[in-house]
Amino acid sequence: MIEPLKDYSRLCVHTMTTKPWTLEEALSGYSEAEISAITVWRQHIEPYGAKKAAKLIEKSGLKVVSLCRGGFFPATSGQDREKARNENRRAIDEAAAIGAPLLVLVCGAVPGIDLAVARQQILDGIAAVEPHAKACGVRLGIEPLHPMYAGDRSAINTLEQANNLVIALDSDWVGITVDVYHLWWDPFLRAEIGRCQGKIFSFHVCDWRTPTRDMLNDRGMMGDGCIPIRDIRGWVEKAGFDGPIEVEIFSDDFWAQDQNRLLSRIKSAYLRHV
Amino acid sequence: MIEPLKDYSRLCVHTMTTKPWTLEEALSGYSEAEISAITVWRQHIEPYGAKKAAKLIEKSGLKVVSLCRGGFFPATSGQDREKARNENRRAIDEAAAIGAPLLVLVCGAVPGIDLAVARQQILDGIAAVEPHAKACGVRLGIEPLHPMYAGDRSAINTLEQANNLVIALDSDWVGITVDVYHLWWDPFLRAEIGRCQGKIFSFHVCDWRTPTRDMLNDRGMMGDGCIPIRDIRGWVEKAGFDGPIEVEIFSDDFWAQDQNRLLSRIKSAYLRHV
Repeated sequence: MIEPLKDYSRLCVHTMTTKPWTLEEALSGYSEAEISAITVWRQHIEPYGAKKAAKLIEKSGLKVVSLCRGGFFPATSGQDREKARNENRRAIDEAAAIGAPLLVLVCGAVPGIDLAVARQQILDGIAAVEPHAKACGVRLGIEPLHPMYAGDRSAINTLEQANNLVIALDSDWVGITVDVYHLWWDPFLRAEIGRCQGKIFSFHVCDWRTPTRDMLNDRGMMGDGCIPIRDIRGWVEKAGFDGPIEVEIFSDDFWAQDQNRLLSRIKSAYLRHV
Repeated sequence: MIEPLKDYSRLCVHTMTTKPWTLEEALSGYSEAEISAITVWRQHIEPYGAKKAAKLIEKSGLKVVSLCRGGFFPATSGQDREKARNENRRAIDEAAAIGAPLLVLVCGAVPGIDLAVARQQILDGIAAVEPHAKACGVRLGIEPLHPMYAGDRSAINTLEQANNLVIALDSDWVGITVDVYHLWWDPFLRAEIGRCQGKIFSFHVCDWRTPTRDMLNDRGMMGDGCIPIRDIRGWVEKAGFDGPIEVEIFSDDFWAQDQNRLLSRIKSAYLRHV
């Protein structure tokens, strides 16, 4: 039996979970809700620029867990692949600017590029930007995405693949982001989390609704779906991870609701189901 | 390079592909389109009963490739699991009645039943109905379903799992149904198809649209998506399969169109992309 969490010391919320809020609203809303950590999406930085966003975050006192997201390495031309790498270098700079120790990578996929080719381009792309990440002191978290996104978002669809990438890249600056939404179905999940020893850089939670009405924006609140979140947390902790637990929920339903109330629901679901 | 198909001798269409048609309409529509094989869904038999359906099919001269579908073994009570097994025995009887040599299994999943438990219940369920399948001369095809259906349709989500089940069950009457829609994303697909030697009982094709607008009924026509269908056919043939190639497309779009025209599109896409 995994012990329930007893307090909110490890709780972190993604700005995408409260998408309707600006960065400033999120910072003050999380603070009021006594949530002490935040993962920032680049779109929430954009209206301010990294410098001003960094100041706002510093003033709020919230801890930045990661910046979402880099990646999207595959492209049909070498020129476009180089563009993608430069965009990742900019994202690394942004992470460093706002004090995020980690950039999460959604690796990318392009209809028309064979998955095996895309996978090689992803490996090459991460290898190409790793020196900049190291120079900036920003770690890279490879986040395997659910196979339903293999067509256009990520050709890295299982933890086994991500683990193999991490081994191939062999860098202290490259590890794994485990998201229960993407990985819960995998029959070898427990074994592959076991293989991550020391390489889990971040951990995302939400739930899988049945039925899921939309492939992108119908994620569930923890406890409202069928993911054994607490079991997975136990496996992740056994693999050496004791860092923040990040609530990342894309949901048209929740975005339409009062975001302060949403934070209360998150806090209650967090203790009960994570 | 895989040689294109030269004729329609291996083409088979599922009654669900032309869902608006009754069985009689499908039989005459396929015949008119010079499609010589059919896979029948149980819902298209139901209005007639198996006996009358068998007569209609016999009269049409079409070859029946398989009956879709059995499975759905997991349940929370022993009584409900026994119900599910009996339903599978009835499906096997139906297959035998209409001259289908194969019953395709969508193995089942139930929100609230842990996937590991569901997987054991599936193994036990197939083992329990296998003697009846053997007695009736009907083979069972385990069809791994896309991981996006792990919540409520099937806890068997990769070909590796299905292959392991087939080995565990060790029966001439139990094999694999390969559907490109469910499996195309798998980084180990080619290797796992290679492991199927002689055990592929049937082969389904369609395509994966990007974006996919609906998780159930937005499958694409071959060539309209990103699945390397011809490559996968090559792997399947290398694993010893030279049977019918079944077009199974669930699509609200196509169902709203003229079904005779749909068959023409299928025939043209079949030679060009399969």
